[in-house]
Amino acid sequence: MCVEEYNWLPTYSSKYRGCLYSVIAGRISMRIGDLGEDVVVELIAKTLISKPGRGEYLFYPEDARDILPRAPRILLSTDAYSASSLKLPWRDYSDVGWSAITGAISDIVAKGGIPHACMIALGLPPTLDQSILEDLLRGLREAADYYGVKIIGGDTNTANEAWIAVSTIGFTSARVPPSRGGLKPGDYIVVTGLYGAMGYLARNGVEKASSLEWIVKYTKRPITRVDTAFVIENNYKYISASMDVSDGLGYTLHTMSKLSDCGILVEKPPLVYSELYEYCKEDEECLVEYSLQGGEEYGVVLGVKSEYLNLVQRDLEYFNIPYGVIGRSVSQPGLYYRDRELKVYRYDQFKGWCRIGS
Amino acid sequence: MCVEEYNWLPTYSSKYRGCLYSVIAGRISMRIGDLGEDVVVELIAKTLISKPGRGEYLFYPEDARDILPRAPRILLSTDAYSASSLKLPWRDYSDVGWSAITGAISDIVAKGGIPHACMIALGLPPTLDQSILEDLLRGLREAADYYGVKIIGGDTNTANEAWIAVSTIGFTSARVPPSRGGLKPGDYIVVTGLYGAMGYLARNGVEKASSLEWIVKYTKRPITRVDTAFVIENNYKYISASMDVSDGLGYTLHTMSKLSDCGILVEKPPLVYSELYEYCKEDEECLVEYSLQGGEEYGVVLGVKSEYLNLVQRDLEYFNIPYGVIGRSVSQPGLYYRDRELKVYRYDQFKGWCRIGS
Repeated sequence: MCVEEYNWLPTYSSKYRGCLYSVIAGRISMRIGDLGEDVVVELIAKTLISKPGRGEYLFYPEDARDILPRAPRILLSTDAYSASSLKLPWRDYSDVGWSAITGAISDIVAKGGIPHACMIALGLPPTLDQSILEDLLRGLREAADYYGVKIIGGDTNTANEAWIAVSTIGFTSARVPPSRGGLKPGDYIVVTGLYGAMGYLARNGVEKASSLEWIVKYTKRPITRVDTAFVIENNYKYISASMDVSDGLGYTLHTMSKLSDCGILVEKPPLVYSELYEYCKEDEECLVEYSLQGGEEYGVVLGVKSEYLNLVQRDLEYFNIPYGVIGRSVSQPGLYYRDRELKVYRYDQFKGWCRIGS
Repeated sequence: MCVEEYNWLPTYSSKYRGCLYSVIAGRISMRIGDLGEDVVVELIAKTLISKPGRGEYLFYPEDARDILPRAPRILLSTDAYSASSLKLPWRDYSDVGWSAITGAISDIVAKGGIPHACMIALGLPPTLDQSILEDLLRGLREAADYYGVKIIGGDTNTANEAWIAVSTIGFTSARVPPSRGGLKPGDYIVVTGLYGAMGYLARNGVEKASSLEWIVKYTKRPITRVDTAFVIENNYKYISASMDVSDGLGYTLHTMSKLSDCGILVEKPPLVYSELYEYCKEDEECLVEYSLQGGEEYGVVLGVKSEYLNLVQRDLEYFNIPYGVIGRSVSQPGLYYRDRELKVYRYDQFKGWCRIGS
């Protein structure tokens, strides 16, 4: 159709996305609509799909895969995204794929499960460039390798805009995986991970953030720590509540306190990137504000029974997981920083940024 | 915005879909963008989410659910659809939801797994009418109840067009679940289910099909037989290959023969609806052609070792599962009806209808 636009470009240019053939860094790339379903599925399978484990049989191109349980209790989750919602300007499509896997396995980790395998359903526009698909698949693959999870299958569909749905199965030896809503007054609030980069982005906007090297570095490929799951399953009797920080630390704290029917008193900020520390000129109020807003941070907030805090700390330190004890659970509902109530904002899928809570 | 268009309509009219409020059968319905994410998620949870089983703990609004294994081997699958691809003109959105669940659990059944639970990720346009979402959820719920599967969670995202991704977990006692590619020459080809309605639709088009009561009746809410899984797991030693009929019987036969490195000789048509029998005036060639094309039929094609056919037949009859023995596997590659090679067509997600195979 638009083969006339055919051109040799030194680097990728989005204006050629709509063309029958486009040329990325000297390489001819076709639109997936011209490749057809079988070729696309083969490409996905070749890049992504892990082989069966010992004693397992079904493999690509089967519609289902068989898995032998790795621990007495199965954990299952599903996380879906439109590709554009993960596409920060400094993320390429491999980073988008990486971020989708990180978000998906984070849900399993927060419940004390070791993520074992993911299934990936993709919605793809027929006009999508093969090279973009390849980037996306590479990012999914790299994340799966990094986290040690298998990708065992999926499904492909035509769509107006690209979307990704990741289902994850994990296993846990915890007899009772911690819920979001189990906090009791007096429990310590332990927050793993480092904060501030996504908060800066949320508060100051994409343009300002994109000029700062540290923001780009820490948000390009978000990371979750799988070994946090070992700490949670080993200490499930001492962990009263657990939730990951996918929609911002403030939202996580708000949700846990609401579901637990008690409040949370934040006494100090969580661990933050040193660059935020400088930016805030060591002002603690500033550090709290920037670390509470954000999203895609994938640390875990744990409620820990006060008499067992040292056991949980010992295990976190054994695995070298960065954490801070930021406060305590209190009987009065609400979310507080010292003597004032905290405002919490969250990105609503259908409405955009909204203030939540009281 | 367009509240002026506000009007009382006796029945649903799609022209009001774009309106801030629309009125369905006298009931005010909002667009989900005005409801916001929390209300939408609550609505989904209330309609869909099943409670934890005995010895299981995590429940809505947790990000993951815990499940205790029901049999030694886990089966996992993912099936995704754009809502429009399931939206035959005579299907309402409850039928779309029903069809999505049927397709998803069919993959598990074909591998000898009893489907246990589904997770559902939805992409929803903010302009979507609440009543359409409610219809979709009702259909998902009705199918889950019909098949006895739990819906244990999911995820919601904003999207340009509605899509549905269903992940299913099942369990099987089969030590080796049958693959698609295990046929050996001499095996009987057993096909469960009734055929011809989707074939008529594929060959004669939507308009002609929509005027025929039997087509509408048999394609509105496709059904899979979960008890087929019992037959497969009980007889896994005798079943050399198995695949469901989601993309048409011809495509399934073609795929199984190709992956098995042998051919299939069709000697007679599968069971067909009596209306197709009349339409074809009992002509067997006509019956074969109409039953091989189609899709969303969700019977299962089994390869059965010839010396054990009677055992598999006995179990299919015990469960009252309709089936036909349509032919044998042969050493010569390809798909044959008596002395001629069969043409196979399939709907390619990115290219549309294509002829496949040799």
